[in-house]
Amino acid sequence: MSGSGIHKVTVLGTGVLGSQIAFQTAFSGFEVTAYDISDEAVAQGRERFAGLAKTYQHDGVPGAADGKADEALARLAATADLAAAVADADLIIEAVPEVLTIKQETYEKLGKLAPEKTIFASNSSTLALSDLVGYTGRPGKFIGLHFANQIWKFNTAEVMSTTETDPAVFDTLLAFAAEIGCVPIPIHKEKPGWLLNSLLVPFLSAAQDLAFGGYAEPADIDKVWRIGTGAPKGPFEILDIVGLMTPYNISLHGDAHQQEIAAWLKENYIDKGKLGIASGEGFYTYPRES
Amino acid sequence: MSGSGIHKVTVLGTGVLGSQIAFQTAFSGFEVTAYDISDEAVAQGRERFAGLAKTYQHDGVPGAADGKADEALARLAATADLAAAVADADLIIEAVPEVLTIKQETYEKLGKLAPEKTIFASNSSTLALSDLVGYTGRPGKFIGLHFANQIWKFNTAEVMSTTETDPAVFDTLLAFAAEIGCVPIPIHKEKPGWLLNSLLVPFLSAAQDLAFGGYAEPADIDKVWRIGTGAPKGPFEILDIVGLMTPYNISLHGDAHQQEIAAWLKENYIDKGKLGIASGEGFYTYPRES
Repeated sequence: MSGSGIHKVTVLGTGVLGSQIAFQTAFSGFEVTAYDISDEAVAQGRERFAGLAKTYQHDGVPGAADGKADEALARLAATADLAAAVADADLIIEAVPEVLTIKQETYEKLGKLAPEKTIFASNSSTLALSDLVGYTGRPGKFIGLHFANQIWKFNTAEVMSTTETDPAVFDTLLAFAAEIGCVPIPIHKEKPGWLLNSLLVPFLSAAQDLAFGGYAEPADIDKVWRIGTGAPKGPFEILDIVGLMTPYNISLHGDAHQQEIAAWLKENYIDKGKLGIASGEGFYTYPRES
Repeated sequence: MSGSGIHKVTVLGTGVLGSQIAFQTAFSGFEVTAYDISDEAVAQGRERFAGLAKTYQHDGVPGAADGKADEALARLAATADLAAAVADADLIIEAVPEVLTIKQETYEKLGKLAPEKTIFASNSSTLALSDLVGYTGRPGKFIGLHFANQIWKFNTAEVMSTTETDPAVFDTLLAFAAEIGCVPIPIHKEKPGWLLNSLLVPFLSAAQDLAFGGYAEPADIDKVWRIGTGAPKGPFEILDIVGLMTPYNISLHGDAHQQEIAAWLKENYIDKGKLGIASGEGFYTYPRES
């Protein structure tokens, strides 16, 4: 079906992001097999797919209400049999848990189970591709492919080459990203944090510095950013969406100053159950009066 | 006219920002005296005011086309006589050149010329308030008041207290900021870069790192930011508006890595006359095809 040459796609992991990747790919007309480690996990994955079909309709994704969401479900198989899942895949998108040994073991298995043609793409947010490539048995066909949460709304697909990725594979993935309705964002060299997080982390960190340092209130910092740049959301509004555990964990592993920020987040927010929108309160209380 | 208790305002300096501050204040109903160092500078200032009256009408600032812009001009005096300019001021907003000795000398004169009641507010973007306060003769009545360029569109007014600012003066300025149609942004402690630039500088710096490092193209970095955060402009679009000399000068005074960034900006952009929108080309060529 496609200029990329990709027809059959396997997605490993049916968690929040894995299920979105699988569904979006199927929604875009590809035959997709989703894999997870147990029948139970697979059943949960299927529930996520059904939920996504409703979400796409509810959010008005074009075509979703006219049968496309249901057709996507029909194109979406799910199994706990890894060998069967990858047997004829043109592309495997790996979205298994962000634990180095789990990913390394997964790639060791894939290297043996998948046919030679298969491209391996990792959606890993925090682990380095260079720590995985040695386990793939096919460095030229290993690449990064990173999606944002709520892929149907925030439809960037960052495609990241390692030093060993075959340039043709890079081009294939850029084409594939467009074919699944995403905006392909080429990244020519390995970059921890990809592009979006490489911008977000220092930006959000600067905002936390201002509030932690007692210079200004989060709401005022957000205000000056919104008005000054025309952005719809300021840094603390973004942090509430991301959830405060993420900056907390990042700061906790940083330098002494960062660890002070972590302690400030813990004492003032996390220990009080203010974890962001998901917990009903973060830097703001939800639902917000506007 | 006002809850702030401010009635007569003097603005020192009729450059790009000083003239905007003076005009916006007069436009909001205050009697304003603009001061500049020579009759020639004052005449240029008057031309700027006339230009701003047209811009407010052209940009559709509410009321501007219905006589308010002309009324503002009528409320706006201009003089090269400093003593006369400040003789009865409730508030002096200082927007003289960003040169430490010029500002210090200005405050030394003001301390003697202005009546005791007068509040001194500095719009200084880059110089520290703590390097100026000692010259004012009235630390309790000295405060920061910072506006963005194109004040009629980007209407934040950052109000920054020093350790010596009288809390009542802080409140007065917050009220005054609202009275001139701005959104007051309280800053409780001295912060180099104020709030907006404290966020922009690390954000724009991270973006330049990505392009300088060869990870991705400016247009792709902008794209991922726009889609990922919903912002209307990415970092390189913002840099083109700011003008590339600003990040160049910031990087030039930074650490070794920052100086590499400066050299990269110089070689690839500045030496080629690509200074941003104002020069017709920067990271993008203008007018842009969209």
